[in-house]
Amino acid sequence: MTTTTELCHATPEDVVLRGRSLPREVVGKATFTEMIYFLLTGRDPTPAQRSVLDACLVTLMEHGLTPSAIATRLTYGSAPEAMQGAVAAGLLGVGSVFVGASETCAQLLARIAAAPDGAAEARAVVAESRAAGTRLPGFGHPLHRPVDPRTVALLDLARAQGAYGPCCTALAHLSAAVDAAAGRAIPVNATGAIAALVVDAGLPAGILRGIALISRCAGLVAHVAEEQAAPAMRTLWEAADAAVPYQPPSQEKKP
Amino acid sequence: MTTTTELCHATPEDVVLRGRSLPREVVGKATFTEMIYFLLTGRDPTPAQRSVLDACLVTLMEHGLTPSAIATRLTYGSAPEAMQGAVAAGLLGVGSVFVGASETCAQLLARIAAAPDGAAEARAVVAESRAAGTRLPGFGHPLHRPVDPRTVALLDLARAQGAYGPCCTALAHLSAAVDAAAGRAIPVNATGAIAALVVDAGLPAGILRGIALISRCAGLVAHVAEEQAAPAMRTLWEAADAAVPYQPPSQEKKP
Amino acid sequence: MTTTTELCHATPEDVVLRGRSLPREVVGKATFTEMIYFLLTGRDPTPAQRSVLDACLVTLMEHGLTPSAIATRLTYGSAPEAMQGAVAAGLLGVGSVFVGASETCAQLLARIAAAPDGAAEARAVVAESRAAGTRLPGFGHPLHRPVDPRTVALLDLARAQGAYGPCCTALAHLSAAVDAAAGRAIPVNATGAIAALVVDAGLPAGILRGIALISRCAGLVAHVAEEQAAPAMRTLWEAADAAVPYQPPSQEKKP
Amino acid sequence: MTTTTELCHATPEDVVLRGRSLPREVVGKATFTEMIYFLLTGRDPTPAQRSVLDACLVTLMEHGLTPSAIATRLTYGSAPEAMQGAVAAGLLGVGSVFVGASETCAQLLARIAAAPDGAAEARAVVAESRAAGTRLPGFGHPLHRPVDPRTVALLDLARAQGAYGPCCTALAHLSAAVDAAAGRAIPVNATGAIAALVVDAGLPAGILRGIALISRCAGLVAHVAEEQAAPAMRTLWEAADAAVPYQPPSQEKKP
Repeated sequence: MTTTTELCHATPEDVVLRGRSLPREVVGKATFTEMIYFLLTGRDPTPAQRSVLDACLVTLMEHGLTPSAIATRLTYGSAPEAMQGAVAAGLLGVGSVFVGASETCAQLLARIAAAPDGAAEARAVVAESRAAGTRLPGFGHPLHRPVDPRTVALLDLARAQGAYGPCCTALAHLSAAVDAAAGRAIPVNATGAIAALVVDAGLPAGILRGIALISRCAGLVAHVAEEQAAPAMRTLWEAADAAVPYQPPSQEKKP
Repeated sequence: MTTTTELCHATPEDVVLRGRSLPREVVGKATFTEMIYFLLTGRDPTPAQRSVLDACLVTLMEHGLTPSAIATRLTYGSAPEAMQGAVAAGLLGVGSVFVGASETCAQLLARIAAAPDGAAEARAVVAESRAAGTRLPGFGHPLHRPVDPRTVALLDLARAQGAYGPCCTALAHLSAAVDAAAGRAIPVNATGAIAALVVDAGLPAGILRGIALISRCAGLVAHVAEEQAAPAMRTLWEAADAAVPYQPPSQEKKP
Repeated sequence: MTTTTELCHATPEDVVLRGRSLPREVVGKATFTEMIYFLLTGRDPTPAQRSVLDACLVTLMEHGLTPSAIATRLTYGSAPEAMQGAVAAGLLGVGSVFVGASETCAQLLARIAAAPDGAAEARAVVAESRAAGTRLPGFGHPLHRPVDPRTVALLDLARAQGAYGPCCTALAHLSAAVDAAAGRAIPVNATGAIAALVVDAGLPAGILRGIALISRCAGLVAHVAEEQAAPAMRTLWEAADAAVPYQPPSQEKKP
Repeated sequence: MTTTTELCHATPEDVVLRGRSLPREVVGKATFTEMIYFLLTGRDPTPAQRSVLDACLVTLMEHGLTPSAIATRLTYGSAPEAMQGAVAAGLLGVGSVFVGASETCAQLLARIAAAPDGAAEARAVVAESRAAGTRLPGFGHPLHRPVDPRTVALLDLARAQGAYGPCCTALAHLSAAVDAAAGRAIPVNATGAIAALVVDAGLPAGILRGIALISRCAGLVAHVAEEQAAPAMRTLWEAADAAVPYQPPSQEKKP
């Protein structure tokens, strides 16, 4: 069996993406978001799916001077000859602590959506998580509480577009179970909402971190553009450096 | 003077991007492409500008198993716990040899566009380049010749959208001068066309490589998705390894 | 409580590393390996510890055209203006699939070393691993079997240097239990041996992947040097590309 | 003609590095620094060359909370599952602004060393640089002035080891010319000294940035180790974020 790729084939006269001619059928006809959907799935999105994917992509683009954005600016100021390195440095922070929990969240939503009694399954998920002492992915935010305004906007859009599917319902079950167990309102964060919307929009759950990467890549390029126009690198560096002073070792340690 | 950022401000109830509320004014209202334009410039694109930016973004997404795509797949297969690392590895290949020449091309186009006689300035640019023995950025392609079909589609779109501006005109002058000097048709490649379109669309020339990074990031995520569904990593590795055999040193070298 | 750093303090006249003057007490007095040990632990290595760390560092440097080395060469050929990007691309492949299993292996060795009956604990570890259907980190190699020659050399060195400590003993217990369960000799690979040696040498187990990163970094720089002298990038690219042909989608998929 | 590699060949029983058996001839016999030299050149270093390379490697390891170290710590705190990403993010800052000027410096030293009258050639280099308004690589330091203590230590070592060769002499000529033109003492920085020492030690000038990458990689791993023991990421982030406040756009810009 030969390993193959379906993504692209280039000849002198054409570039074909999953069977579709880039110059004749894509340029001027499809938006970037539509082509992201098409390349990831091999299908064209419905208008609702495209709208939801656009909403997810604009939501994660930018959240100010996050660790990821600071890494990009420090790296750009150190190696301006290689913008790709600065953007890559920022993307390397798109990991498990911030947006990366999306995939685990999607797995839990799929489990709840597949259960005969979603509400009961959600309570079981919460009970297991509390027993294990782990944090439920998709819930809680250090700043946006008791409600994450991005989540509200995303779920409202899903409802308005008829794109509120089984994972969104599962998320509502899970949110109710989380609040009941905590005895107060815990915000569903943007990562949790996006996990539900993206999977309900027909995209593979395994690619959720990739959606965050595409979106953040654009935000990081905007940081490079602002750094070109109004450099902040020295200020960021000096403030960070000054905040963590040198402490000489009390005495040389012995083996 | 304080260094500031205009990009984003987050409060418990809101996320504000360049003065605009993400949950109230962006989600469900703006496409990803529109927000890329807005974050990079602080302005909303006209419909023509948005259309041109979409066309540039879909053009650079995917060109098959390029070095950049292969690096992403090899890295994903080595460290599947960190999709961000695989995508970053691929982006690190978005350098001077392939798409990176765009910014130099834009500088030449700006010079020709600013000259009183564009055709004469274009001939001067070509003469200087030939005297220096350097390759003109934006021209020539190993596969797409004598015409790059992506360039034709992009420039047709610019004309149809009324977005064919001074840099596009400068590119036409430069192309004529290049062909005259070579005595045959040399293709304007996609990188050259995109340099003209992006600058004519009001985006800063300094950010051209960033447009390529955003676009390629999406293409590389598609490679990760295909790698998840149909792994090619071992095949790519073994073929590359077998193509470059070990050659023992003839004898140990002396200093 | 202030967060501090113990690593380095620079004044106009001096650079102080963990309390030690770089120009007066380090340059010309300490080897690179000794300073790696000192920066990681705050202690000077004994001669045996230095010898073991040197052995681990030389063992992981180079294993030919691995995915990581191929990624470095493809990236260097795409962006030669940024050697740092090429080396970073290669390091991003130092993940869980190849050397990254070292830290999990060290945890198991620590557990066995802490048990009253190491041999029994090792059998329990193997039984749990077989029940869970997971692969034991540090064991097995696709090429080096039934014996990994690097492991033999590393453990011989540890014995000769008097650096064969509790983790090495635990590794021997584990190896015996693995072989007994499999009914044949399964090689302890270099990753497993290095996990034992590094921890017995007094380095923190949490930093094991870092030892691999330092070592591989040097190997990847050697690949860049060879690429500068005898470029293989095009050959690697073309062979990989040809090995995974385009397969048009059988028909457009429906949602 | 076949493209080949000389670096490594692995068989079931052996791993051969440039013709030398890793388990039989390297482990326990060569230091990491000696193997770096051997892999980069195919030759064993003399004791003086090894001593000089060790000195260069320990000099660049660590300079406190540089942009590169901050990027590593921010990334590690964001994606602790992928230490390789954190180290890669830091290495991406090893670019033209800080250590990267080494290669340009080496080219100037080679030109001066090749000239019949080194002092005159050095004056010509300085005059050209002043006419072009560019900064001479290898000279000046924001903190270490009027003398970089690392440079003094490195050049003293070279003299003591009999490794003070033509590039070191050229550096002295250049330093004299720089001081004369400036009318005051301008420090030769560590980057400049290392350029001279590394090339005089028989290593290829094209690989200078690679020496910095290997050295910094070890320093960055030490930052990860300290971050594991005493996390500073939140402090670094909050200080940097607070130093660059949000400034709302005065009014929405029009195209």
